[in-house]
Amino acid sequence: MLHFESDYIQGAHPAILEALAKTNFVAQSGYGADCWCESAKEKIRTACDAPDADIFFLVGGTQANATVIDSMLYKYEGVFAAVTGHINGHEAGAVEAAGIKVLPLPQHEGKIFAAELSDALQTYHADDNREHMIRPGMVYISHPTEYGTLYTKQELEDISKICRSYNIPLFMDGARLGYAIACPESDLTLPDIAALCDVFYIGGTKCGALCGEAVVFPRHGAPAHFFTLVKQHGALLAKGRLLGVQFDTLFTDNLYFDICSNAVRTAQMLRAGLREKGYPFFIETVTNQIFVVVENRKLQELNTRVCSGFWEKADDNHTVIRFATSWATTEEDVKALLEII
Amino acid sequence: MLHFESDYIQGAHPAILEALAKTNFVAQSGYGADCWCESAKEKIRTACDAPDADIFFLVGGTQANATVIDSMLYKYEGVFAAVTGHINGHEAGAVEAAGIKVLPLPQHEGKIFAAELSDALQTYHADDNREHMIRPGMVYISHPTEYGTLYTKQELEDISKICRSYNIPLFMDGARLGYAIACPESDLTLPDIAALCDVFYIGGTKCGALCGEAVVFPRHGAPAHFFTLVKQHGALLAKGRLLGVQFDTLFTDNLYFDICSNAVRTAQMLRAGLREKGYPFFIETVTNQIFVVVENRKLQELNTRVCSGFWEKADDNHTVIRFATSWATTEEDVKALLEII
Amino acid sequence: MLHFESDYIQGAHPAILEALAKTNFVAQSGYGADCWCESAKEKIRTACDAPDADIFFLVGGTQANATVIDSMLYKYEGVFAAVTGHINGHEAGAVEAAGIKVLPLPQHEGKIFAAELSDALQTYHADDNREHMIRPGMVYISHPTEYGTLYTKQELEDISKICRSYNIPLFMDGARLGYAIACPESDLTLPDIAALCDVFYIGGTKCGALCGEAVVFPRHGAPAHFFTLVKQHGALLAKGRLLGVQFDTLFTDNLYFDICSNAVRTAQMLRAGLREKGYPFFIETVTNQIFVVVENRKLQELNTRVCSGFWEKADDNHTVIRFATSWATTEEDVKALLEII
Amino acid sequence: MLHFESDYIQGAHPAILEALAKTNFVAQSGYGADCWCESAKEKIRTACDAPDADIFFLVGGTQANATVIDSMLYKYEGVFAAVTGHINGHEAGAVEAAGIKVLPLPQHEGKIFAAELSDALQTYHADDNREHMIRPGMVYISHPTEYGTLYTKQELEDISKICRSYNIPLFMDGARLGYAIACPESDLTLPDIAALCDVFYIGGTKCGALCGEAVVFPRHGAPAHFFTLVKQHGALLAKGRLLGVQFDTLFTDNLYFDICSNAVRTAQMLRAGLREKGYPFFIETVTNQIFVVVENRKLQELNTRVCSGFWEKADDNHTVIRFATSWATTEEDVKALLEII
Repeated sequence: MLHFESDYIQGAHPAILEALAKTNFVAQSGYGADCWCESAKEKIRTACDAPDADIFFLVGGTQANATVIDSMLYKYEGVFAAVTGHINGHEAGAVEAAGIKVLPLPQHEGKIFAAELSDALQTYHADDNREHMIRPGMVYISHPTEYGTLYTKQELEDISKICRSYNIPLFMDGARLGYAIACPESDLTLPDIAALCDVFYIGGTKCGALCGEAVVFPRHGAPAHFFTLVKQHGALLAKGRLLGVQFDTLFTDNLYFDICSNAVRTAQMLRAGLREKGYPFFIETVTNQIFVVVENRKLQELNTRVCSGFWEKADDNHTVIRFATSWATTEEDVKALLEII
Repeated sequence: MLHFESDYIQGAHPAILEALAKTNFVAQSGYGADCWCESAKEKIRTACDAPDADIFFLVGGTQANATVIDSMLYKYEGVFAAVTGHINGHEAGAVEAAGIKVLPLPQHEGKIFAAELSDALQTYHADDNREHMIRPGMVYISHPTEYGTLYTKQELEDISKICRSYNIPLFMDGARLGYAIACPESDLTLPDIAALCDVFYIGGTKCGALCGEAVVFPRHGAPAHFFTLVKQHGALLAKGRLLGVQFDTLFTDNLYFDICSNAVRTAQMLRAGLREKGYPFFIETVTNQIFVVVENRKLQELNTRVCSGFWEKADDNHTVIRFATSWATTEEDVKALLEII
Repeated sequence: MLHFESDYIQGAHPAILEALAKTNFVAQSGYGADCWCESAKEKIRTACDAPDADIFFLVGGTQANATVIDSMLYKYEGVFAAVTGHINGHEAGAVEAAGIKVLPLPQHEGKIFAAELSDALQTYHADDNREHMIRPGMVYISHPTEYGTLYTKQELEDISKICRSYNIPLFMDGARLGYAIACPESDLTLPDIAALCDVFYIGGTKCGALCGEAVVFPRHGAPAHFFTLVKQHGALLAKGRLLGVQFDTLFTDNLYFDICSNAVRTAQMLRAGLREKGYPFFIETVTNQIFVVVENRKLQELNTRVCSGFWEKADDNHTVIRFATSWATTEEDVKALLEII
Repeated sequence: MLHFESDYIQGAHPAILEALAKTNFVAQSGYGADCWCESAKEKIRTACDAPDADIFFLVGGTQANATVIDSMLYKYEGVFAAVTGHINGHEAGAVEAAGIKVLPLPQHEGKIFAAELSDALQTYHADDNREHMIRPGMVYISHPTEYGTLYTKQELEDISKICRSYNIPLFMDGARLGYAIACPESDLTLPDIAALCDVFYIGGTKCGALCGEAVVFPRHGAPAHFFTLVKQHGALLAKGRLLGVQFDTLFTDNLYFDICSNAVRTAQMLRAGLREKGYPFFIETVTNQIFVVVENRKLQELNTRVCSGFWEKADDNHTVIRFATSWATTEEDVKALLEII
């Protein structure tokens, strides 16, 4: 069986397991006050060119989103997100469970448009009844988006500029951030992101770690008592070292980006092969996710030999499926898949 | 430096790291739908003598408490807990953040008394104004308690009986459950707990795992859509295998209890040695936590060679400190400490 | 100055003030346990042809919406509403503040379409990842809608049928319900609504009372401990009689519908006059709200003599404004307005 | 039947009903932007000697408490209250439903002691683990307390001083504030309270109004977007005039305090009579509430002729009952009761 159903079907990059084993008996304080967390933070600051960044390691993405959003918004504020944004559809209402409204914006292959954001903000601020309404208090974007697409530097600059003119923070969900940055087609670097966003996280779980997301407030600026709010959200690991060791390893010798480059490169191979074979793409992407339309009959056959992800029905006879590559995908895997399909 | 400050200062039992390494490249579905989660659940069901148990793996204790309590209570209900219960004081208000009131009961070395619980329930149900008040909807206990003390079987039976007569669930926080069961002095087995509680969790983080708590609904009975609520609480790992592999290892060949026995045995050694040396105990415990009163001058000296946990000021010249043993504590460690102190 | 800006700019129908004065010194229990609440409930049951209805009086609309929705939904559920629904835009996020997600549906002059509701439910239930998503747990509609439009009996039957087939409650926000039922064009009676909805409220504040909304669960079926949840939402008046006396008066001798008929009739006069004068309507309505497009220059002049409600910009030179009539609007008021405009 | 069961069993002072009738047809904007709200605010500012006060009218007490507390606390903060404080026991968990923990302090006839508050604050700030705990963010007191007792000026100064030294607001629940200020024994004036508290409310419902509480931020300082939070809590009346007219009336010609004086004076008469007849008092009070111990046999007989409030069981043969007087209690009522009892 070949496995392309997602990027979290295997464990961690072997270097992580080695580091966990090597450090296992070293005694260190809990709750993130260990030497590896410190070291990882310093390496991330360097990678982000953000020497004053406040950094926190949280276990997972839904948690990171809910904790960041809850801690940065007043109770009368809401968060803009693409209607397809992960927080709006696929996090079981975690943001609303914290009492906060998601304010949906139109999506364009998963992205929001600066002009529509600007309109929404203007509309709110021009409304006589705005004090009866939830006030926009943050903009959430995901990069890559839920559709595997990427913001350009220009697009991010435009969105950032609007946020700053309204004095509301810009938050980037980077659950798969490594795959964005590893794309040769992308002109957005980690320092760019740190410069343009007010908070973002660097995803570990889907980029080679067992678990963990690094939340970065690039210019100091973590909310007061953020530690307490992390705890309140159940996002504080007693053995914080589990996250520290992993991120310390990922940000040593460029491992994080090497891993993600492998995923992007093998995805590129697969994409080229599929294009050659005439498969239509549901969306054009350059990251580690490929969305392709297959005949249902073909899919049924495929399912016996390859695991893929169901995305949506295309029409009565066709289905959109997702292939995802990862740190662990080999060129042999891709060749094997291309032979079958 | 000797380390006795807590039971979460080192990584995981080596067997866990080995299992993670061995299974690392096996591809499996995410979100807990992997073979190790299944296998671990089956082993836990057997250990609990609870063949119909619904079992879920959550990352940490605060999260497990908040998710279980939030999912089992109606919005007009609250949860009884000892005033010293972890949810009441040390979880950053996570239960209240979910909208639920903790109803404090008096504590006796960390335990609640059945008679006082019964009184509180009677008082509520006899009150003409009870519909203006939060209705008791659950009883939370920790075992071992935050003071390292244990409920007897009789005590748990009494509390359980009251809960059943009022038709409210009894929830046991077992963050250190292994250390309770491994105590020769304890007459409460895992099947007893499964029989007497409606939900409990078996702590991994503080009993040899990197992270993870196994929430057990012993007679089927998980709340509807509990999976969705786990996700909403940010407690669902994409790589659920991280928890599955760990609990599968811990519940193979009795490893969980062997690990905990080591901690209890070395604590017993340390306790005997301290008693011999005339140190007064703040509380008499039989688990892996020892609370002892030391002179401040002595403590200052000690601090240069041993890490211990500050508990509270005893008087102007004395301090209560905590020594905790774990799966990793050796007899040599204990001997070294006893030589120093 | 003429006043057409809203239907809550004056006090209460004089009969209500008289009843308050008449009953003022009669001593009765608080919190809704008074004789007028009882009497009002009985009269409403009769008017709804719902002898088993559970009825509660709450102070205001936002409160009624939040309390009903919060009390009827599980924590993993959300509520469908038109994107223009009052709970989605104009209640300051009260539903989300209670932890619940509003699931927006497309709006058609303020209404939702049964077919689109059905699609949304099917899509959810067909989604493999639905357990990661908020589950639809209620359908909220307003009648009249925020645009003054009305559901037909057929439309309500279609929506009700879908709700029942999915076993989720249908909730009608009737903040202006009287104006709907008083419309000769409407084929939906109060008993129809009671038969087709699972919960609804009969608005008092905007239909002649000082304050108050009557929440009706037409076939018994109020949520358990609803009283406690009303209190928790701050919606329980100590002097519940204030609401009891008002609704008892409104439902005596058809006063509620007579009042609303006056508003509808005067609105009809005004509508006819405006049509004759060639004013284009933003939306065609039959209730007490009229949305008309006026030139900005004209509006400026008008503003010196008539209070109207700003609705939205039509284009650079035109504005949509709202005229609302009420129990207190006279034919003379309408004539005066038609002379000016 | 004589009525002494509570101070909210009758309607409103007749002057209020007259004012409502007189202003009924005057058209004014909704949501508190009417002339009576403005006028009432100005009169309250004068009465409080607080010319910069921000004032808001909310419908009821539970609502006022929850809205004030929710709007002034960060998500990592909790509110100190006497264990017998209304928010802790009798508001159906409204504060916790907003996500906020009540931090109970010991009570002494309903009051908190400055020394114990100070200790609790010191303990928190000295705790090494305080970042795992809810941070004290407000002190809530009620005056009169739930037991009808009063703080002295010295006591309030002491509490206020502690709050200021820790930079946390002091909030006074004045549901029955008029009865405190009207007591000749009390040395706390309204300007004192305005000077010493950061926010408080002047209760209308239990002091002669149909409903309504005036929330006062005495030195400007209402939380940002407080209006929106009032709306979110369902506490914003469309016909805000209902509250404006009432408070405008109450604060004209000293009516509020005259009304309350009547209640205090008749209570004093009743107290003297009961003392003469040898009834033991459960608690000594000087406000409009009297707590007296009666034999159960006597109570049974009494119940056929007088309505009183059950407070609690004293012993197997005795019960504590409450008599409350109000604006409407006459000397004749008191004499009649004293003849019966």
